[in-house]
Amino acid sequence: MADINSPLEIGVTTGPIRGSKKVHVGAKSGSGIQVAMREIQLEGGEDPVRVYDTSGPYTDPEATIDIQAGLPQLRREWIMARGDVEEYDAREVKPEDNGQPQGGSGPDRSGGVPAFQNVVKRPLRAKPGKNVSQMHYARQGIITPEMEYVAERENLGRDYIRGKIVEGESWGAEIPEYVTPEFVRDELARGRAIIPNNINHPESEPMAIGRNFLVKINANIGNSAVASDVASEVDKMVWSIRWGADTVMDLSTGRNIHDTREWIIRNSPVPIGTVPIYQALEKVGGVAEDLTWEVFRDTLIEQAEQGVDYFTIHAGVRLPYVPMAAKRVTGIVSRGGSIMAKWCLAHHKESFLYEHFDDITEIMKTYDIAYSLGDGLRPGSIADANDEAQFSELYTLGELTHRAWKDDVQVMIEGPGHVPMHKIKENMTKQLEVCGEAPFYTLGPLVTDIAPGYDHITSGIGAAQIGWYGTAMLCYVTPKEHLGLPDRDDVKVGVVTYKLAAHAADLAKGHPAAQVRDDALSKARFEFRWRDQFNLSLDPDTAEEFHDQTLPAEGAKTAHFCSMCGPKFCSMKISQEVRDFASKQNQSPEGFIASEKLGADTAEASKQAALKGMEEMSKLYKEKGEQLYLPEDEVG
Amino acid sequence: MADINSPLEIGVTTGPIRGSKKVHVGAKSGSGIQVAMREIQLEGGEDPVRVYDTSGPYTDPEATIDIQAGLPQLRREWIMARGDVEEYDAREVKPEDNGQPQGGSGPDRSGGVPAFQNVVKRPLRAKPGKNVSQMHYARQGIITPEMEYVAERENLGRDYIRGKIVEGESWGAEIPEYVTPEFVRDELARGRAIIPNNINHPESEPMAIGRNFLVKINANIGNSAVASDVASEVDKMVWSIRWGADTVMDLSTGRNIHDTREWIIRNSPVPIGTVPIYQALEKVGGVAEDLTWEVFRDTLIEQAEQGVDYFTIHAGVRLPYVPMAAKRVTGIVSRGGSIMAKWCLAHHKESFLYEHFDDITEIMKTYDIAYSLGDGLRPGSIADANDEAQFSELYTLGELTHRAWKDDVQVMIEGPGHVPMHKIKENMTKQLEVCGEAPFYTLGPLVTDIAPGYDHITSGIGAAQIGWYGTAMLCYVTPKEHLGLPDRDDVKVGVVTYKLAAHAADLAKGHPAAQVRDDALSKARFEFRWRDQFNLSLDPDTAEEFHDQTLPAEGAKTAHFCSMCGPKFCSMKISQEVRDFASKQNQSPEGFIASEKLGADTAEASKQAALKGMEEMSKLYKEKGEQLYLPEDEVG
Repeated sequence: MADINSPLEIGVTTGPIRGSKKVHVGAKSGSGIQVAMREIQLEGGEDPVRVYDTSGPYTDPEATIDIQAGLPQLRREWIMARGDVEEYDAREVKPEDNGQPQGGSGPDRSGGVPAFQNVVKRPLRAKPGKNVSQMHYARQGIITPEMEYVAERENLGRDYIRGKIVEGESWGAEIPEYVTPEFVRDELARGRAIIPNNINHPESEPMAIGRNFLVKINANIGNSAVASDVASEVDKMVWSIRWGADTVMDLSTGRNIHDTREWIIRNSPVPIGTVPIYQALEKVGGVAEDLTWEVFRDTLIEQAEQGVDYFTIHAGVRLPYVPMAAKRVTGIVSRGGSIMAKWCLAHHKESFLYEHFDDITEIMKTYDIAYSLGDGLRPGSIADANDEAQFSELYTLGELTHRAWKDDVQVMIEGPGHVPMHKIKENMTKQLEVCGEAPFYTLGPLVTDIAPGYDHITSGIGAAQIGWYGTAMLCYVTPKEHLGLPDRDDVKVGVVTYKLAAHAADLAKGHPAAQVRDDALSKARFEFRWRDQFNLSLDPDTAEEFHDQTLPAEGAKTAHFCSMCGPKFCSMKISQEVRDFASKQNQSPEGFIASEKLGADTAEASKQAALKGMEEMSKLYKEKGEQLYLPEDEVG
Repeated sequence: MADINSPLEIGVTTGPIRGSKKVHVGAKSGSGIQVAMREIQLEGGEDPVRVYDTSGPYTDPEATIDIQAGLPQLRREWIMARGDVEEYDAREVKPEDNGQPQGGSGPDRSGGVPAFQNVVKRPLRAKPGKNVSQMHYARQGIITPEMEYVAERENLGRDYIRGKIVEGESWGAEIPEYVTPEFVRDELARGRAIIPNNINHPESEPMAIGRNFLVKINANIGNSAVASDVASEVDKMVWSIRWGADTVMDLSTGRNIHDTREWIIRNSPVPIGTVPIYQALEKVGGVAEDLTWEVFRDTLIEQAEQGVDYFTIHAGVRLPYVPMAAKRVTGIVSRGGSIMAKWCLAHHKESFLYEHFDDITEIMKTYDIAYSLGDGLRPGSIADANDEAQFSELYTLGELTHRAWKDDVQVMIEGPGHVPMHKIKENMTKQLEVCGEAPFYTLGPLVTDIAPGYDHITSGIGAAQIGWYGTAMLCYVTPKEHLGLPDRDDVKVGVVTYKLAAHAADLAKGHPAAQVRDDALSKARFEFRWRDQFNLSLDPDTAEEFHDQTLPAEGAKTAHFCSMCGPKFCSMKISQEVRDFASKQNQSPEGFIASEKLGADTAEASKQAALKGMEEMSKLYKEKGEQLYLPEDEVG
């Protein structure tokens, strides 16, 4: 893994993931659109396996990476070709955008990070009266290059399994056997999927979020008032997409927010989301009561011009709901939610986000920014799950979804939080109902509160389930959740954990191609192709490292046994002998063909015997007047 | 944490888990039985929280730990008092018991580990014609001290929540609000729960496995042909119960199996399970075909006298089922299953385990050993889940369950394996049906194959779900699964992961007291009682370590903020201000009481608006002949 170091000392990990190479697949339409994928090479004459690739040019040895310059603008041409945008002079960057005191007086809080050199001075916006959202195009029947790109990308693996029967319980999702650009367009048009891609973020590779597409995951990065800096945030962004983050949220709350974001967006091939209220609060010195619509609006424009692809807007935290949350065990745990609650109380006024929702929508459609309607009242503990405050807000988010759709603006809905397993499904069902199937984007949920340090797991359990039920994107949780800021290793563990949860959800939903990778890996495992087993896994480096801790010898990677049982006891080995033996037997008229038939009978006989036994027990139980303590001789 | 080192250099971790102390609670019956529990001390005048304690004397500062001597014999008196057992001369230990070539010739494979000094020379067995199983006593209406111990232990926390309404979806389980000794007896009598405790393992603290009790977890240890030794296995046993393992399986397959097991059992306060076929195979030089009923029977007696509490017996792997498995992607992945399959094929005979099942049952009732009917044909990949081979075996296990119950022998059933989420429930439903609600004991299941290195998580996701559906005990999986042998750290990660999965299942089932700990931890979190948050967690050491990585200062542990948001942005802090503000408001007739009422109305209005919006969309969709691409002016 080569490291590229800029004068700014921003080092990011580049080079292919082991055992695989970057491939570019031309869209079936012949439009010339090239879709990036990762191809895992296998041994023993096995076909390579193509997997969804979020890593962008960083894993492409052909690509030149220059953090100072930013990524190539893949989508620029497509955007310009539509003829509905115009360049204009960007808003002036103000000292407070970077957390400097207004007017620039007082101590320097920039952290010595220079502005991105290649910054866009002439951003794009929709021409007057135009709407540049992908939803708007879709509703006019237009298939954009972005939609084509997504269709090709989502079809991955479907060629392998043509005609194969796929099982699954999709809970009402409508996953197609094959994804056409028309299907993508229809899903966007009806609001069931979104393609978050601000016209000012042309570096992004289009991806879709919707319950009829692969389940996606988001990784959070961002500096805070107490720690981390721009270099490590850019590095974390590249690191998180290397392992599979489909989108990245920059949740910076510290100094230098504006410049940090610029570095991240210019170098990100995945959509970037933010929570604009964080920066707005910084601008008013952290005093929630001092927030105004004007400051917030100005922040939206600032971030829109930089190219943020989706905004978390906590417009569902309405004045009347606040007291409901005050009754809780853990009150309001959403930062944005608590900021707005405090504002509402201090002024005893309805939320300015709710009041100005249509004004926000105007901005969204001017840049094609997607709403991520924030769940400011999500439960922060098992005790608060599915309560009045949470669902009251959800209903309001449903109302706002339809308001946004009237203007063809893309919407997804954020969800909890902390929810015990038996209450997870209700979240999904209500969300689908009141939000008209707009994509659900949940944090976890965590299924218990008692495992700080392991909350990537407590939340991964909930994430796999809610993903199965229909959540379109899962927001990752790292082992540091509730305790501290994730470092590089935490980010990787969080991403891989969520990747496996999302994949488990795809399998359970019956995604036609999801099982291709499981089957390839299991076949490799059974055939002792150790390297293939490592390379097909979500984290080849860790898999090989763990293997080598017990059997370091290079020979062990071709050995037909492993450290668990050793050569003599290897069940896989024995079972291959069994297979050979059985197949030989099958060649004779009697032997196994006969006993296979017998097998079904034997199983059926066993089942009947078992059920009969159970009957007897319960009969005995009833006969004896449901007494269980009987004299010995009466119990068979 | 003090370390006690024996001449043999067996060091184990002792001393209390941070923030908590060992307490002994007298059984309500007044019988004088003392039940060990762990009490977590809290700050700020909060009541201490009692939690289930599997760690035995090792966390009790009062106890003297001497690995050479073994643990005190808690149950010896209870066993003798029943007057139905007799002492006799133990079977002579043979060289092959420790993997020495028959007759002791050839190279020494003992690994230089001396036999346990305090070895039992006069084990116990049932007097002729007697049956000493807990199920047998239960069916005669006898409440044993073991049952009383279990009742008290399982009641933990129920006193906190008397009268509180507990929600949950138990899928037909019958969890009582309060556990009486009579309830324990009835569950044992009908086979719905077991208390695995061989009369030759009097050191064990009684525990129950059944769907109406707390979900339990098992940790696997054991040396292998390629690695590990007795000292590290004893250490792993003590380490795993420290973090919550309810039972431990010794899966040793290497040299010195007999002596390793003696060290483990004499020092274990939790039930020990084994797979006797492993040792039997060692005795015949690893050649499956050479196994005989006589060698196997002799091994059962050997292990019965040592005090093994439950035996995994793969009696469901019948000759006719073998070809079904041969068709699979990963064949037979169970070691015991593949050994028996090979034997059946080689001799083209029905399994001697199946043929001699009643003879095995005779041994079980003579020592009160519980059956753990092995799933030798469990699926080893997503592709093989819920197939003919797996369910054929399950039906046979159901048949055998009822056969064992006729002799009042305790039974649990082992389950898969690798199963995608949508196929998990069927496993539980079928098992309950054909095995008459005998406790289900599953490995995972893993919900995807593509994450080696993270299989504690892929399996933890499946384990939480199947535990919720009714599985009584979850067999842990470590990060090393499929790759190597778990070390001490892997064992801890596996145990904590399964502990949180089991707890999530208890919460979802509606266990009356499960939420007590979640609520206490969340309250501590909300009130910034950092130490309480650490101490209430499953792994206080890791929780504090992660916190300190970002904010090492001692002061940060009392700070009213954390590293995620810093002081200014802390949502918990803001939300406490919100709470104070709201409560003030509530004192005036208008203000929040009014707006709370308004809240419900607002929420209802939002919901109606949302649903109406959705209707309009789908109406529009239909009107336009399900075309989604409409001229701009037609879309609102």
